[in-house]
Amino acid sequence: MPAALPLSAALLCLLSAPPKAPAKAAQAPSGPSPQVAEQLIGAALTDGHAYARLAELADGIGPRLSGSEGADAAVRWAKRSFEADGVKVWLEPVKVPHWVRGEGSARVLGSDTRREQKLAVLALGGSVATPPEGLTAEVVEVRSLEEVAALGDKVKGKVVFFNHSMAETKDYGPAAGLRTRGASVAAKAGAVGMLIRSLATASLRTPHTGALRYDEGVPAIPAAAVSVEDGELLHRLLASGPVKVELKLTCQTLPDADSFNVVAEVKGREKPREVVLLGAHLDSWDVGTGAHDDGAGVTMVMETARLLARLKPAPRRTVRVVLFMNEENGLRGGRAYAEAHAAELGEHVAALEMDSGGGKPLGVVLRSGPGGDALVKPWLRPLEVLGAGVLLPGEAGGADISPLVPARVPFVGVRVDASRYFDVHHSEADTLDKVDPKDLAHSTAALAWVSYVLAEVPGVLPRPEAPATPHP
Amino acid sequence: MPAALPLSAALLCLLSAPPKAPAKAAQAPSGPSPQVAEQLIGAALTDGHAYARLAELADGIGPRLSGSEGADAAVRWAKRSFEADGVKVWLEPVKVPHWVRGEGSARVLGSDTRREQKLAVLALGGSVATPPEGLTAEVVEVRSLEEVAALGDKVKGKVVFFNHSMAETKDYGPAAGLRTRGASVAAKAGAVGMLIRSLATASLRTPHTGALRYDEGVPAIPAAAVSVEDGELLHRLLASGPVKVELKLTCQTLPDADSFNVVAEVKGREKPREVVLLGAHLDSWDVGTGAHDDGAGVTMVMETARLLARLKPAPRRTVRVVLFMNEENGLRGGRAYAEAHAAELGEHVAALEMDSGGGKPLGVVLRSGPGGDALVKPWLRPLEVLGAGVLLPGEAGGADISPLVPARVPFVGVRVDASRYFDVHHSEADTLDKVDPKDLAHSTAALAWVSYVLAEVPGVLPRPEAPATPHP
Repeated sequence: MPAALPLSAALLCLLSAPPKAPAKAAQAPSGPSPQVAEQLIGAALTDGHAYARLAELADGIGPRLSGSEGADAAVRWAKRSFEADGVKVWLEPVKVPHWVRGEGSARVLGSDTRREQKLAVLALGGSVATPPEGLTAEVVEVRSLEEVAALGDKVKGKVVFFNHSMAETKDYGPAAGLRTRGASVAAKAGAVGMLIRSLATASLRTPHTGALRYDEGVPAIPAAAVSVEDGELLHRLLASGPVKVELKLTCQTLPDADSFNVVAEVKGREKPREVVLLGAHLDSWDVGTGAHDDGAGVTMVMETARLLARLKPAPRRTVRVVLFMNEENGLRGGRAYAEAHAAELGEHVAALEMDSGGGKPLGVVLRSGPGGDALVKPWLRPLEVLGAGVLLPGEAGGADISPLVPARVPFVGVRVDASRYFDVHHSEADTLDKVDPKDLAHSTAALAWVSYVLAEVPGVLPRPEAPATPHP
Repeated sequence: MPAALPLSAALLCLLSAPPKAPAKAAQAPSGPSPQVAEQLIGAALTDGHAYARLAELADGIGPRLSGSEGADAAVRWAKRSFEADGVKVWLEPVKVPHWVRGEGSARVLGSDTRREQKLAVLALGGSVATPPEGLTAEVVEVRSLEEVAALGDKVKGKVVFFNHSMAETKDYGPAAGLRTRGASVAAKAGAVGMLIRSLATASLRTPHTGALRYDEGVPAIPAAAVSVEDGELLHRLLASGPVKVELKLTCQTLPDADSFNVVAEVKGREKPREVVLLGAHLDSWDVGTGAHDDGAGVTMVMETARLLARLKPAPRRTVRVVLFMNEENGLRGGRAYAEAHAAELGEHVAALEMDSGGGKPLGVVLRSGPGGDALVKPWLRPLEVLGAGVLLPGEAGGADISPLVPARVPFVGVRVDASRYFDVHHSEADTLDKVDPKDLAHSTAALAWVSYVLAEVPGVLPRPEAPATPHP
């Protein structure tokens, strides 16, 4: 348990002031109250509970890939923790993929001019195994999916190496597409294996895993991420001639396993059927302990439920927390929730997912119909002391809540600083020490207040136009 | 091969100016010449040769722990490279330790309140193996060697965990003492195993190895470094109760192997028996490719020989380059050189070792008798453009040249920026990409000029007083 975080005098001062829009407050005497801001933000910033809870999850439970014992333990822990907080909780069944990493190794074979070199690799989640003796082939380097097709026959029998140029957080999206789709695009062109430079903004020979998706009707070929350093090594070696690698992976895909979304809620006092949904995902990769991804998000939404459950009276609407299972390699939890609750989605007045790590809060984003800003903006003032009292451009989203898009559920986001998130994301280095207790407390405070506002304001966000395809 | 580095106009201007001490220059018309500074520094900064050579060693040869095939390949490569440069070269035999890492793993055993957690570990170099089924014991955390003794019986049958607080480069010395001596100090108190938090200034779950030394008459117990993250995990877990770990190491110490110091020289035109010795170590750890430690040093001293060999006339004294074998886990090369050349050491007028990585040059340090400064200082001006034209406080040293201390050989050092050196030192992350081609070129240039000055100035450094014990 970390030392209690001091509540700054500035915060106390701001919290005791009336909200910025007195006219609005006057029109809605039963709207969000500054006293509640004081309670929620004050508690989140001073009691150290969020970080202690994250420690239980990261240090106590550890990795929790779908189907694993860790995932089961996390479900039991989450249920127990909600109960201890006096928050109503139940489990909703989900069948999840059960992929097991096994062992992985790779090396560049020696040649006349150089010795063999080991590569630091992690199989991509869902990858098939290589033959037990490994797979040996020449490497072809590409930077895009398009380049694979353009190379034609040159890819046949080779290992395709995707050497993208992810350097900053904003590069993750396009690079993730290579990781997800690269193996099948390469296999379609006749490749026998796939390597990708890790999607990482820092590296100390640290490979980063992540999910892949095999297209139907195309051979499933083994696929792995190499560390950034090894990606650069391959690039340098290829500059002076052919490079042959050996890849050994012993991954296994077992039959789907039984698991659960953990669902908890604080019932609304006036409109209990209207639901503000707060999501995060309880599963993590099997490397590291999923502290940022998504232990931090899990902690923030659990803490929000704990803090809201103590309010008397309860917020106007129901705040429901869903700890989704299997965000990382299947999204089964997100889909299962949308299916199981299809009949209620018309009354889901907002959905929010925390899944960008435990950084400090930066502001609020929305995905709603026109006029959503006007509902939220007047209530941002208590977030100013946290550095997050602004509506930011950009859309709110989240993988687990993306199946709610067709139901036109308005999305809200508390955006956190993710500038260092991809240093550790999906790697062995995603551990508790990377999460700053102060940042986590600040983001928890911001989320608690935003959640309360959504549950309490007299009106609700206008629903967005349904797009043709779900939000990614 | 990197793009050629531009030679700045400022440098050209400075180089063509006369040295700062015209009186001195007038007294010594045959002293170091500004035209030579232009040649040496100009070539080092523009031809990209140093980085290309380092790539051959790091990417082409890779890890080269004493006794390994990589070490043999490095010896052959170095000899071949000197020959290609037209530098006289020979091999001097050294018997070296032959330790083989094997496999290593460790985990915190689960308990009622937490699941098992894997630890990222690397056996310390020279460690004995654990039993094949592993060694399981409770952990006792300490911060110093003294604390082990103070704990008395509490250490018996336990794994002693040294959790020092290395945060900056300057903390390496004391922490290295724990790594070297900790296993025997712990064993003397009855411990059955030893763990140490990695000596590192950055970590992405990156363990750092390094040598240990077993005292005679004390049981040799298995010893390993855990990553910084895992050190912090152990510390957190211990705060809430006993922690049991399992450690498995399959290290082996084979019979001593035959190897070599690679010795090369540029014969002096006037005083060929007077030797300016430039050292670096050719061996590396078996993790990473030893790019900073000590590929960079090897490259700098080889490049210096190459550049000096092209001078006409040759420098006044002999410049001898020694690529020592086995600095990392035995210092056999350094000792063998001192023994084999005992009769010549009276004519070793200076010794210098480059073994702090490939950072940019900061200045020059000396370990000589009184008045050494006056010999070197007038010739530092060409280093100003490199940011290194200063005599720095502190002593010059180097593990491989430490056996020359009793012979009172004056030591010189070209100090490089090592502020990020311990991010990667002795870890899988010590790879070519961590060395900046520009910094390496600058340090090579500085070394080439300093070496030339030492070989060319009319006088020699006064010999230091012999200390009671060799310089560490």
